[in-house]
Amino acid sequence: MIGIFDSGIGGLTVAKALMDKLPGYDMLYLGDTARMPYGSKSSAAIAEHSLESVDFLVNRGATMIVVACHATSGIGTDHIKKKYDLPVFDIVTPAVDLALKRSKNNRFGVIGTRKIVNSCIYEKKILEKMPGAKVCSAPCPLLVPLIEEGWLKKPETRMIVKKYLLPLKNRQIDTLILGCNHYPLLADIIRQKAGKKVTGVDPSFAIASSIKAVIDQDQAIKKKLTKTGQVLFFVTDITEQSKKFSHSILRRRVELAPVPIA
Amino acid sequence: MIGIFDSGIGGLTVAKALMDKLPGYDMLYLGDTARMPYGSKSSAAIAEHSLESVDFLVNRGATMIVVACHATSGIGTDHIKKKYDLPVFDIVTPAVDLALKRSKNNRFGVIGTRKIVNSCIYEKKILEKMPGAKVCSAPCPLLVPLIEEGWLKKPETRMIVKKYLLPLKNRQIDTLILGCNHYPLLADIIRQKAGKKVTGVDPSFAIASSIKAVIDQDQAIKKKLTKTGQVLFFVTDITEQSKKFSHSILRRRVELAPVPIA
Repeated sequence: MIGIFDSGIGGLTVAKALMDKLPGYDMLYLGDTARMPYGSKSSAAIAEHSLESVDFLVNRGATMIVVACHATSGIGTDHIKKKYDLPVFDIVTPAVDLALKRSKNNRFGVIGTRKIVNSCIYEKKILEKMPGAKVCSAPCPLLVPLIEEGWLKKPETRMIVKKYLLPLKNRQIDTLILGCNHYPLLADIIRQKAGKKVTGVDPSFAIASSIKAVIDQDQAIKKKLTKTGQVLFFVTDITEQSKKFSHSILRRRVELAPVPIA
Repeated sequence: MIGIFDSGIGGLTVAKALMDKLPGYDMLYLGDTARMPYGSKSSAAIAEHSLESVDFLVNRGATMIVVACHATSGIGTDHIKKKYDLPVFDIVTPAVDLALKRSKNNRFGVIGTRKIVNSCIYEKKILEKMPGAKVCSAPCPLLVPLIEEGWLKKPETRMIVKKYLLPLKNRQIDTLILGCNHYPLLADIIRQKAGKKVTGVDPSFAIASSIKAVIDQDQAIKKKLTKTGQVLFFVTDITEQSKKFSHSILRRRVELAPVPIA
């Protein structure tokens, strides 16, 4: 089974992209909602929490791990690879690869929560792979609450997106990475306000494409995945709001099963 | 000393009101920022956290406890009173008393986070004291992030406040309780959008007035409080954002001392 985990519900955009790209494959999703947000936690705590999440997924039959959480991608992935002999995919690398492929002028924009932008995780990865690139980042802290409130089409949201993107527009970026699992839900407004010349990169789409390519090429990995169409969703804490929000991402009602790993 | 605690930084509005009303009195503030927000925690966890906070304050010399946290007021206060033989003040009761005193038509509005509104803590307290009262509540979940981002005067904030208050305006309330420690920072906009006929009740002002009245009347309580002008601020976790936000509430730079109680 494909095991996916995130600190919360946002990672369901990644689960959705995987379900769209790999229909029929069995998947397990774990959202550590009891301990979210990870952004304000120490690296040691994040590493520990992610190992606990992976333990849960592996015990339930995961043979491949998808680190959907941005905060964990830079911190937890190495710990997981050390502990488990499984294919592990982080959300950042495929997004950077796709952005590098799409850009023509090598001027990249990154939007994300304040924590992700301050961590410079995208900037570092882009510069590792293309030392001369220009990367301009803008924190968009109000977008997560607006999205979680379902304010996807309100004029206030459009105004706030426009305000956040203004500094990036002035820097002539041609590629914009949506560095937060929530942002694909605002993709249309972001595309509009970023301008026609800018191509958006949705990490959930990038990681799903990259995993599909691996499965198509690697028979050993493919053979370990089952295909009965079962997708299970687990959370460490459950609220009315998280139910509503998961419904708005997956566009169907799903059972969120509470599990006490935290 | 007067010991004040909250789940985060928002309770500094209560500390500020107390400092304004009782200048010179020594105070200790504890914000349990490592474990905020309390709103999503179980009652048992909230009760336990509040006792830990009070232990900390009492060990440092507090002889009076101010429960600045709305989520804790309904849950933790009784536990604290059982454990400690000290005067304990919760943030809800004085606000309700002031609202009852100010209203002429006994139609009350309450705004707060979704958790506070769903808990009906204000509604229950008002109806206990005035069984025939009409109470209409509106959750305003986006105001806390807007305030924490410092968007106090932006047009988007004005538009969002107007939207949130509309259902209350239609119910002919004449008194509006600002049921969240953050909201006094938006008092001007809230007053404007609520309309001229509506009187606002700021719980931080209400609790400070009520504590001042007790101190003025009760010599035994007064004698236990020291007056050297010392005010100390402690937090269980510290971020750049919380420093900025505390500065914007207190209107001066203060030292936030990190303490590992969590």
